[in-house]
Amino acid sequence: MKIINGGVCAAKGFTASGVHCGIRKNRTKRDISLIYSEKVATAAAVYTTNLVKGAPLTVTREHIKNGYAQAIICNSGNANTCNANGIEIAEKMSELLALELGIKADDVVVASTGVIGQPLNIEPIAAGIPMLRAALSSDGSADAAEGIMTTDTVKKEIAVEFTVGGKVCKIGGIAKGSGMIHPNMATMLVFITTDAAISAEMLAKALSSDIADTFNMVSVDGDTSTNDMVTVLANGMAGNAEIVAEGEDFSAFMKALNTVTVYLCRMIAADGEGATKLLECHVSGAADTKTAKTVAKSVICSSLTKAAMFGADANWGRVLCAIGYSGADVDVSRIGVSFKSAAGEIEVCRNGAGVDFSEEKAKEILLEKEIEILVTLDAGEASATAWGCDLTYDYVKINGDYRT
Amino acid sequence: MKIINGGVCAAKGFTASGVHCGIRKNRTKRDISLIYSEKVATAAAVYTTNLVKGAPLTVTREHIKNGYAQAIICNSGNANTCNANGIEIAEKMSELLALELGIKADDVVVASTGVIGQPLNIEPIAAGIPMLRAALSSDGSADAAEGIMTTDTVKKEIAVEFTVGGKVCKIGGIAKGSGMIHPNMATMLVFITTDAAISAEMLAKALSSDIADTFNMVSVDGDTSTNDMVTVLANGMAGNAEIVAEGEDFSAFMKALNTVTVYLCRMIAADGEGATKLLECHVSGAADTKTAKTVAKSVICSSLTKAAMFGADANWGRVLCAIGYSGADVDVSRIGVSFKSAAGEIEVCRNGAGVDFSEEKAKEILLEKEIEILVTLDAGEASATAWGCDLTYDYVKINGDYRT
Repeated sequence: MKIINGGVCAAKGFTASGVHCGIRKNRTKRDISLIYSEKVATAAAVYTTNLVKGAPLTVTREHIKNGYAQAIICNSGNANTCNANGIEIAEKMSELLALELGIKADDVVVASTGVIGQPLNIEPIAAGIPMLRAALSSDGSADAAEGIMTTDTVKKEIAVEFTVGGKVCKIGGIAKGSGMIHPNMATMLVFITTDAAISAEMLAKALSSDIADTFNMVSVDGDTSTNDMVTVLANGMAGNAEIVAEGEDFSAFMKALNTVTVYLCRMIAADGEGATKLLECHVSGAADTKTAKTVAKSVICSSLTKAAMFGADANWGRVLCAIGYSGADVDVSRIGVSFKSAAGEIEVCRNGAGVDFSEEKAKEILLEKEIEILVTLDAGEASATAWGCDLTYDYVKINGDYRT
Repeated sequence: MKIINGGVCAAKGFTASGVHCGIRKNRTKRDISLIYSEKVATAAAVYTTNLVKGAPLTVTREHIKNGYAQAIICNSGNANTCNANGIEIAEKMSELLALELGIKADDVVVASTGVIGQPLNIEPIAAGIPMLRAALSSDGSADAAEGIMTTDTVKKEIAVEFTVGGKVCKIGGIAKGSGMIHPNMATMLVFITTDAAISAEMLAKALSSDIADTFNMVSVDGDTSTNDMVTVLANGMAGNAEIVAEGEDFSAFMKALNTVTVYLCRMIAADGEGATKLLECHVSGAADTKTAKTVAKSVICSSLTKAAMFGADANWGRVLCAIGYSGADVDVSRIGVSFKSAAGEIEVCRNGAGVDFSEEKAKEILLEKEIEILVTLDAGEASATAWGCDLTYDYVKINGDYRT
């Protein structure tokens, strides 16, 4: 599999754009994005499990329940959530876009991200839609990636090339993450496009199977957003025989999808609000996958472990503590923990108790930007990985006064 | 009920002490404490649910399974957890203390708090025990409260006077909290003494019933410690007829116990690591108590809500978000939220959507040191309260390099 340029525009027939329409006061920050497919695409999406759901999610769910979509519009700066007229505004966004593009309103995926509970005005969006259409380009992925950013500090995009039945296919995605990141059966905003031909049913199957090991294993702050959504559009323009069942082609597609999603997960975790480090917790030797996942996610979510990583402090007792309260059934006396990074690997705990180790070497390892926390449970063959970030002064700063 | 001085020494027959024995390098900080009852007392305790359990908990559980104890020894600076010889050390602490005091080793409650996974040397403890005995005094509660502190910034003690069957009884407690505070069926370290006569069975009943609404409703950082423990000793020296069943006397005892525990909960939350504010979330109008508790605790645990409170930002959308992902079954469209403090009260959300409010007034309210977050669910009569604190730069600072 080859990593290529182009993000959501890498796949044949997709163009994108991002502009400043005026939702945000800062005129240098794009605040609305569009992704468009020449042809109607099969579509699948997963949504937040938060009972408080953004109005755009309700509208999108209705629009793609037939399995098709052609365009995605997403604004930042306002989540359009907990507003009395939220549904109305989200529907209006779809209608105005459909009119502009000459497509059906129920082929529009609509999304919003930003502050909860502040009414979203339609005026800047109505003004922005013609600008978005005019700016549509096969080079537009980076602009679209910027338009959906909130406190993100880097644009998150990727694309890969893969082969299905001898045909070259492409799949690419953009994402926004940063804060309120603790997805549950869905996630942040992630938009993925592919020119592979795949039925709506198999696309939904691929997506829901993938996210269980990818986006649902990421946490920045334990807060599950009201507006999480991952959407995939597949327009079939690569010309492969449509994937309609499991088999070799579906596996090739799943593998490509997973490459895109794992890359975006790592980017979202590394760019968590205030983060200075990406944390990856690998759990192996678990009795079953559920145990491995529970343990990995508990470690990644521990405020104390996250703060220790910020301080490059090999305080492995906090890792054990997080395993102990995770709810997973583990034998504490068999747990092993090591820290690993570009600077090396060091064992700090064996059989549930500390081992002698060089604090100096541990410090050197933990001063790197990407840290792996390796946990072994010595109870079976199952494993899992979770992604997170350190807890820093800047997380507090960013969130102490987010609205102003 | 009257609040009185004396902490754990307020009740008749109890003395206490706290000294520096050398576990900590800082010679000005007391690091070991003793609470002693002239007479053998009925005893009850609850412990952390973390699978990783401090060795002292295992030893204490064994010692008080007969329902009796006479002394409590507790060191700070080292949790004696995840150490290969942990049990041995905890037993040795009990034996040395029993020898010094001329009591039975299995009448000793032993506890430790501090870093996990560093071997605990018996030498400083062995040297400290005679000093502890020599320092025992009816004025010793404050010293004992200091000896169990880790990153706590204030000593936590209280005592109250109440009447059982015409006899004046006293109950008092000390606590340490600060970090790794998210008790589950047990809590931080809390030692309570009373001279009321109450059977071991009724004492255990009183304690386990009380903590469900008190310590289990506190969270500083979502990390459930490995060493949480609440212990009550009741030596019967007040001379009341022993409480052996439910009824008026038991109710009076429960009320006094609750006054002590709620006071300590508030102190622990307000003195959470790095905290500048005490947060109290009151949920009312819930369909049942479980729902009310789940919602209250979810709000108190939300990193984003905690950071907003630090910034005195009335970002109520984060409160709704935390309610939505709590797992409780609530009707979002009926939720109301207000903020309250000494500076007044302001409604910010009604029927799940924002209401117009003065940002200036909200700021004024949220700049106070004690903030109440009032949530109404409009679904029934049940209510609950949870206690927490804001998330600040100092939490990160304290935990970025705790061990050095």
